Amino acid sequence: MTKTNSTATNLYCPKCGKTYDLSHQHQLCDCGSPLLVKYDLSKAASIVSKADIAGRPATLWRYKELLPVQEEENIVTLGEGLTPLLPLRKAGAAIDIENLLIKDEGIIPSGTFKARGAAVGVSRAKELGVRQLAMPTNGNAGAAWAVYSAKAGITATIVMPEDAPKITRNECAAAGADLFLVRGLISDCGKIVGKMVREQGIYDASTLKEPYRIEGKKTMGLEIAEQLDWRLPDVILYPTGGGVGIIGIYKALDELRQMGWVSGPLPRLVAVQAEGCKPIVDAFDKGEAESTFAKNSQTVAFGINVPKALGDFLVLDAIRKTKGSAVSVSDDEIISAVKTLAQSEGHFVCPEGAATYAAARKLREKGWIAKGERVVLLNTGAGIKYPDTLQVDVPYLDPL
Amino acid sequence: MTKTNSTATNLYCPKCGKTYDLSHQHQLCDCGSPLLVKYDLSKAASIVSKADIAGRPATLWRYKELLPVQEEENIVTLGEGLTPLLPLRKAGAAIDIENLLIKDEGIIPSGTFKARGAAVGVSRAKELGVRQLAMPTNGNAGAAWAVYSAKAGITATIVMPEDAPKITRNECAAAGADLFLVRGLISDCGKIVGKMVREQGIYDASTLKEPYRIEGKKTMGLEIAEQLDWRLPDVILYPTGGGVGIIGIYKALDELRQMGWVSGPLPRLVAVQAEGCKPIVDAFDKGEAESTFAKNSQTVAFGINVPKALGDFLVLDAIRKTKGSAVSVSDDEIISAVKTLAQSEGHFVCPEGAATYAAARKLREKGWIAKGERVVLLNTGAGIKYPDTLQVDVPYLDPL
Repeated sequence: MTKTNSTATNLYCPKCGKTYDLSHQHQLCDCGSPLLVKYDLSKAASIVSKADIAGRPATLWRYKELLPVQEEENIVTLGEGLTPLLPLRKAGAAIDIENLLIKDEGIIPSGTFKARGAAVGVSRAKELGVRQLAMPTNGNAGAAWAVYSAKAGITATIVMPEDAPKITRNECAAAGADLFLVRGLISDCGKIVGKMVREQGIYDASTLKEPYRIEGKKTMGLEIAEQLDWRLPDVILYPTGGGVGIIGIYKALDELRQMGWVSGPLPRLVAVQAEGCKPIVDAFDKGEAESTFAKNSQTVAFGINVPKALGDFLVLDAIRKTKGSAVSVSDDEIISAVKTLAQSEGHFVCPEGAATYAAARKLREKGWIAKGERVVLLNTGAGIKYPDTLQVDVPYLDPL
Repeated sequence: MTKTNSTATNLYCPKCGKTYDLSHQHQLCDCGSPLLVKYDLSKAASIVSKADIAGRPATLWRYKELLPVQEEENIVTLGEGLTPLLPLRKAGAAIDIENLLIKDEGIIPSGTFKARGAAVGVSRAKELGVRQLAMPTNGNAGAAWAVYSAKAGITATIVMPEDAPKITRNECAAAGADLFLVRGLISDCGKIVGKMVREQGIYDASTLKEPYRIEGKKTMGLEIAEQLDWRLPDVILYPTGGGVGIIGIYKALDELRQMGWVSGPLPRLVAVQAEGCKPIVDAFDKGEAESTFAKNSQTVAFGINVPKALGDFLVLDAIRKTKGSAVSVSDDEIISAVKTLAQSEGHFVCPEGAATYAAARKLREKGWIAKGERVVLLNTGAGIKYPDTLQVDVPYLDPL
């Protein structure tokens, strides 16, 4: 066995402070809160340098000292990470943001950022001896966990709404997952998974109910810092459903600051939601610490149709601590942004990712984003996973 | 303007030897053959080292001395290249190939290897002042050229069979391409494009009718060499439609050999086709230098449904010069391989990529692949682009 040199020391509860060890399976804290991973960051800063990391392969495992997996042999990888961070000159100019960038998470196994959480989550599940896991999903997380579980030899039980993107259903089935459909929302799927977990003792891989998915998502923040030569941007806009990504990015940047690898204020984090499902935006506007279940939620950006996120309080905390914001955009604005990004920049993004462009436009118009600020849009997935987002009418030509 | 330090010197015809300059638009040679790019390889070996390349960003532009683009400003990039090369331990053991690897071209903008040809092809088109280009496509090439053309501000006219994967239609439309559908095969689309090009003077971006797409595809070979620490594998299996990839890989490895960066015999290159469309396999078996148009061709692996490739003679030459082979597999074998790779390895690949696994099995059974040989499967695209490859029947659960 070869050690990864992970500097993870324990799990801790961000609500009540209770700690847990790393060598056993843990789900939520006894108090009901998600658990987070704690690292010995001064040790991390002493055993690895920025130059060391620059010389490593182009996957998220280049940050292994800041990841929880203990043994190299337990790493389950499909080559995920170090996705492109690219300038959007034309689309930026169109909304008066000169220094606009996109972090394109479509260029990753399974085509969405969910691969990061699955890679680290499944690796830790394997390390902890998990044989079967279960989760509710809006599609993409289930697909990612299904393929990584297949690689690891773990049985994945996936429960998704029948309206989830069809391709994610096929990915799960192809990977040999135990897949079930539900005529309802992800919250309905979550109840079913909860019952399975209670009654059958299956490992619960639901969003934030195991502590390692967030560590995979965290690597988006590490990469943004490294790709900008360890100078942080002013604003990061993130499409927010369960919110694990925004929590993870905040955690990553905070850890880098503690290591002394970045300095100055953290980027202002913006949670972007759809008008048809905006519990975080409402809670932010009202100054509340937690969100309220959004009834009858609906949006074309299926991945962020999450009526109530378990980690809502952590999302709100990350936004407020960074002087960020929460913004909602309409489905029409989302569709329009998909077209603009594809036509002017060649980035065919998912509707969730497109929502961040629409939100950036609004925040610039209001002056909340200032002239000259460096702004990163987080595109969480490839547009090719959503064949029905755009209605296309194509003319025919006759064969000669 | 910043020079790329490209060592390209001119174009040449592999059939009649005629040469052409790099500063004007060229299509086919006057003799009708595709043109290839020639480099000053001793200069390349003197101005760049393996260590230089190792320190560069993780895109195909790390090999810029061996690419034809002259000015950095003309590079049109969406972050393509350096796709994962990963071991397939379980799937390898299942077919008695211990040292089996997959080069996964699904992890790239637009989800297929076509992004490489488009990135380099569109960059050169931009450099040469092209304002409009046209091409026939089985879908994925059109999608890739549409998004890169959008980024470059070039108008792309794309003509595809109505049976091409629907998502590729949406990608083209989203990117603002002039898209047309045809009730026919890619060969019918090719005739239409030919007429457009003749009558309207549009730049012809059809397979091998411009000399730069192959240079993008070539980078798959450069990457395989670099990722294996400059020790070449024994066999590379490649799903072959137009065949640009296999020609490109051969060209890349031959150039590396001339530079002294690799030594020993080149990998045996295997062209993999579907039983329903196997013109290259037939020509190889008959010892012919060119293929014959495959009538009534049909296969689930839509991307390799190419009845007659313009570069067939170059494909056959590459196979023979490397002591390679050409193999066909059935659609049933392809579907079965899609499932095996997803279930045992977590790689949800396209049917074309899966065909290489089925072919490797056959070649091992015949003893053509020897025990212990290192074998690379080239997966040309992500399974998520083909939602209808697998028929999936999923049970429902009732909401609680």
